[in-house]
Amino acid sequence: MNFEEIIGILAGVFTTLGVLPQIIKAIKTKKVNDVSPLMFVVLCLGVGFWTLYGILKMDWPIILTNGISFILNAIMLYIIFTQDKDG
Amino acid sequence: MNFEEIIGILAGVFTTLGVLPQIIKAIKTKKVNDVSPLMFVVLCLGVGFWTLYGILKMDWPIILTNGISFILNAIMLYIIFTQDKDG
Repeated sequence: MNFEEIIGILAGVFTTLGVLPQIIKAIKTKKVNDVSPLMFVVLCLGVGFWTLYGILKMDWPIILTNGISFILNAIMLYIIFTQDKDG
Repeated sequence: MNFEEIIGILAGVFTTLGVLPQIIKAIKTKKVNDVSPLMFVVLCLGVGFWTLYGILKMDWPIILTNGISFILNAIMLYIIFTQDKDG
């Protein structure tokens, strides 16, 4: 594995798992008042389009990283819309 | 421009600008208590690595989209760390 590939894998792992700390914080505190739902709607659309792009190109790293991202962003969106607003 | 390219551009625009609604909300409400700082630290690292990856490959679309993403995520991080906790 060369230097470029290592940087690419680090980039993919960090951007894919970035939303996890927000999900954990939301579950722990049960508060999402200051979180923007629109951010996660736009991110779901974005990584959804990346997944579709990966499918069109049959590019598995793109499908896998963005597919996981889509699921995580969708989970966060679900938490936001089901959370009691005064929780 | 073919269908794949259009999907790729949509994907890039949405994932790059996704953080904007959160920045606008934080500036308007002056509240970021429920927002995870760690999320934006991890995302800054991730898109920072993607920018470096783009530089190594001299791939301008990767450099441009992730460079903008890095700036936006860094702005959000700055807002979080300068915001009064009881704002």
